[in-house]
Amino acid sequence: MSTNNLVISIDAMGGDNSPRIVIEGLAIAAKKNPDAKFLLFGDENKVMPILNQYPALLKVCELRHTTEMVHNEDKPSSVIRNRNTSMYMAIDAVRKGEAQAIVSAGNTGALMAISKLVLKTIQKIHRPAIVSIMPHQNGKYVMLDLGANTECNAINLAEFALMGDILARHALGLKKPRVALLNIGAEEMKGKEEIKQAAHMIKNSHMNLDFRGYVEPHEIPNNVADVIVADGFTGNIALKSIEGTARLVIRLLKNAVKKSFMAKLGLPFMLGVMLRVKKTMDPRLYNGAMFVGLNGLSVKSHGGTDALGFSVAVNNALMLVRQNFVATIREEIEKVDLDELSQEVFYDVY
Amino acid sequence: MSTNNLVISIDAMGGDNSPRIVIEGLAIAAKKNPDAKFLLFGDENKVMPILNQYPALLKVCELRHTTEMVHNEDKPSSVIRNRNTSMYMAIDAVRKGEAQAIVSAGNTGALMAISKLVLKTIQKIHRPAIVSIMPHQNGKYVMLDLGANTECNAINLAEFALMGDILARHALGLKKPRVALLNIGAEEMKGKEEIKQAAHMIKNSHMNLDFRGYVEPHEIPNNVADVIVADGFTGNIALKSIEGTARLVIRLLKNAVKKSFMAKLGLPFMLGVMLRVKKTMDPRLYNGAMFVGLNGLSVKSHGGTDALGFSVAVNNALMLVRQNFVATIREEIEKVDLDELSQEVFYDVY
Repeated sequence: MSTNNLVISIDAMGGDNSPRIVIEGLAIAAKKNPDAKFLLFGDENKVMPILNQYPALLKVCELRHTTEMVHNEDKPSSVIRNRNTSMYMAIDAVRKGEAQAIVSAGNTGALMAISKLVLKTIQKIHRPAIVSIMPHQNGKYVMLDLGANTECNAINLAEFALMGDILARHALGLKKPRVALLNIGAEEMKGKEEIKQAAHMIKNSHMNLDFRGYVEPHEIPNNVADVIVADGFTGNIALKSIEGTARLVIRLLKNAVKKSFMAKLGLPFMLGVMLRVKKTMDPRLYNGAMFVGLNGLSVKSHGGTDALGFSVAVNNALMLVRQNFVATIREEIEKVDLDELSQEVFYDVY
Repeated sequence: MSTNNLVISIDAMGGDNSPRIVIEGLAIAAKKNPDAKFLLFGDENKVMPILNQYPALLKVCELRHTTEMVHNEDKPSSVIRNRNTSMYMAIDAVRKGEAQAIVSAGNTGALMAISKLVLKTIQKIHRPAIVSIMPHQNGKYVMLDLGANTECNAINLAEFALMGDILARHALGLKKPRVALLNIGAEEMKGKEEIKQAAHMIKNSHMNLDFRGYVEPHEIPNNVADVIVADGFTGNIALKSIEGTARLVIRLLKNAVKKSFMAKLGLPFMLGVMLRVKKTMDPRLYNGAMFVGLNGLSVKSHGGTDALGFSVAVNNALMLVRQNFVATIREEIEKVDLDELSQEVFYDVY
């Protein structure tokens, strides 16, 4: 590798069509980011034949050979014991300082478990979270946690708010993102205890967020907040409900056009518009969920995405590394003392 | 009232544009259901001028005068103390046997609180739930709980499965509905403790359901189950995420068409198809959330719906009354002993 600092570690064997889409995705990302280098981990017999087809990419890649890999059905508890998988080695490269971030399209649970074990959670952060960038009617927002923590307490939620705020500043370029807690009502009394406590905590901390209180899921598309905070179970349910419904409406439209002679006549005129809407909601353009709260950045690409989708995940990693995202979280969490605040909150509430 | 048994009690004052849309909705429902009678509760000075515009409806209506009503901002704890509101009196008519179901477009929390207090939960059912009928790609499914119970244990979820099964048989006309628990993964180990326990309970009870295990929200549109069971917080989050996204995609399409000259040329050909898709997702056609598990049926109409939407809620009430829905739940819950089963489950799990 060169002396250039911008190195992303890549699990070449993760995902449904690896290593092909991984390498094709890297080729796209490399063109966009001529200053970036990639440190690949995977089976050289499988990786090299494909990598050789991309001479420009080959020049900015280094491959470390390993025949072992994490499979989709592997349990987190078992994958953390095998240090020879492409995923483990790719994450470990970040710990060693050989790379600043790691991207994998492999098993989400395994990626989180190994990332936590190897990179460790940032001091004072209790739990890392999974964040994604998502589309609303005229822009984007970030949502977290999307599944790292099934159960969360108020401190976890307040920390997600802090990390989401930093991510929105870096990834969406906002000066003062609007932060909201996902809930089933806008009134203060609505929802779960931990959500109410988190609201109290965020308001009374030194986090200095532009906190907008509660937001209900149907309001998200109306651009009411830039950071949506939820526990991992709720966030995952919302994310998958959004994905499923977007796909449903587009599929209904397609099927209706197929069945209508009239609509087929109009299709040449409408195709541009329909493709534009489809693109706005295109999951590939929002690929690359970021694991935040760790000493190093892990980015999870969707396992079934294509080369374009994988390149978006790599772009996310590069963008956050360039802006020193992890260091910013470390600095800002130092300014707040959520543990102390939580005692006060619990005293207040009960 | 006549000797005819089919009487629906109506809170004429609930909802954003009451009593106008309530009465206009009843006019639509009355045409479809010539055997139904309506017992209205509301301010005669406001109701009669509108009701007089519908002579056919007037013949099948009886109005009980009251000047008091439940407001949107009223708390459940206060509304249960005022027996003179149109909502309270309408629910009480079901308890007295003057009507078999009650429909209101008012405050959801108040409707649930008064319904529970006045109608009481069916013996052996621990918690009532809110159910809705929803669209998937080629049909409909039912989902519960949509918000009555923020926190649920395994017994609650198992009972929701039982009640959802009965509702799907009655409302969707299915012989053996496929029942699934909403979760964030398909594997047995995924999700919250209470969901895993509920799965175990449903499998090992005498409920005799066609239980399909876990379903993730993005799979619902693919017609994988007829009954989707969740706690009230999760169900409400999923419901509102679905509503918001459906509206977002349709709005994006509309806005894109507005901006495109080409698309406007094609619009006359495509309009039929676009309206058909919009209709498939039309929230008015899925209006009328049913409160199940009570000794009597309460149906909640969306507060902001129009006459068509309100008539759908009334139709739901009539459909379930005609099929003796409440009696069926009473009979079937007698056959299972969830409390006993739960002891066994907890013993198994821990």
